[in-house]
Amino acid sequence: MDKAVDTKRLDKQFAFIKEIDKEKQIIRQTPLTDGSRKENDAEHAWHMAIMTMLLGEYANDEIDKYRTMCMLLIHDLIEIYSGDTYCYDETAKESQRERELAAADKLFGILPDDQAVYMRGLWDEFEEGDTPEARFARTMDRIQPTLLNRSSGGISWLEHGIAVSQVLRRNNISGAGSEVLWNYAKENFLRPAVEDGQLKGDVNF
Amino acid sequence: MDKAVDTKRLDKQFAFIKEIDKEKQIIRQTPLTDGSRKENDAEHAWHMAIMTMLLGEYANDEIDKYRTMCMLLIHDLIEIYSGDTYCYDETAKESQRERELAAADKLFGILPDDQAVYMRGLWDEFEEGDTPEARFARTMDRIQPTLLNRSSGGISWLEHGIAVSQVLRRNNISGAGSEVLWNYAKENFLRPAVEDGQLKGDVNF
Repeated sequence: MDKAVDTKRLDKQFAFIKEIDKEKQIIRQTPLTDGSRKENDAEHAWHMAIMTMLLGEYANDEIDKYRTMCMLLIHDLIEIYSGDTYCYDETAKESQRERELAAADKLFGILPDDQAVYMRGLWDEFEEGDTPEARFARTMDRIQPTLLNRSSGGISWLEHGIAVSQVLRRNNISGAGSEVLWNYAKENFLRPAVEDGQLKGDVNF
Repeated sequence: MDKAVDTKRLDKQFAFIKEIDKEKQIIRQTPLTDGSRKENDAEHAWHMAIMTMLLGEYANDEIDKYRTMCMLLIHDLIEIYSGDTYCYDETAKESQRERELAAADKLFGILPDDQAVYMRGLWDEFEEGDTPEARFARTMDRIQPTLLNRSSGGISWLEHGIAVSQVLRRNNISGAGSEVLWNYAKENFLRPAVEDGQLKGDVNF
């Protein structure tokens, strides 16, 4: 005889799984590589999870790839309620933290208690950025858009008139996760974008 | 002094990461839960990776969640070249295997050799379905669309005139990954869909 199935637990888990389907409709500013449209949060998370499989070897400190991947898969979920805040929109960023904390309480509260605590722990860890896994995850979160922007011909940078100094400031944490990958991104995505006029070249780097 | 950076290896890895961006444009037959559009392969993979985090506890046999998640994240990548084959399109399914093998050679060949072998191994493992991880991954791959279809009001089932016997046949492997989850899906997604006329009720189950 199988152990008794806890239907209430399953109901909560599936309610959460159904609710997070909405992340597929949270649109980011980053274009797909062919520039045909902007990507959404779910696609972004999926892309970075695979990047972690392939690029985890370049982390400054050894990482648990499973934990890093879980962090990346769920770190934007709260935007279902709080919305995506464009990283160069300074006004929206002022109210961002408060909106996101309320969203986290509401969203993770759908889960059974133990899993709510686990998810919230992953999200807090990512936000704080103090562990090797969180540092690497944050590097992925910064570098992936530079690849997409550069591949698309700089569509989003041009649309918002972004200067390379802004991208460098936004990426000031990227070297902490992986020096190798951040250097690669600078040389292969940012420098050519400045040379091609896709990013304003307002500083040397 | 850091160890020397293997730029050729990085170039191959980033070429692959750029190429798989195309998965975001491979559209499936399954609608989003609100029925507003159909989902794509990247969104589908992301959704199932989180499902694995939350539902791995119900696997018939204990699973390595990292390996299962990796398998789910990458198992549809070859559709970038071979296209998505609708699971109830019997004609397209005849040529599916051949198209997919050629696609796998082409796609995974972009990676450095060791990672090409690793990815191909994961893909083969999923296709063969003989390990606990592959069986569980395949259960996710079958159950996730039933949740989405049911939530949307059965849009895709109705559009294609699907009968519950077809869904049951397609899911004949789902119990092998998780009896608990397959029973849950039958009772909560399929039976109500038959009762509401979203699926043709041509057999008892």
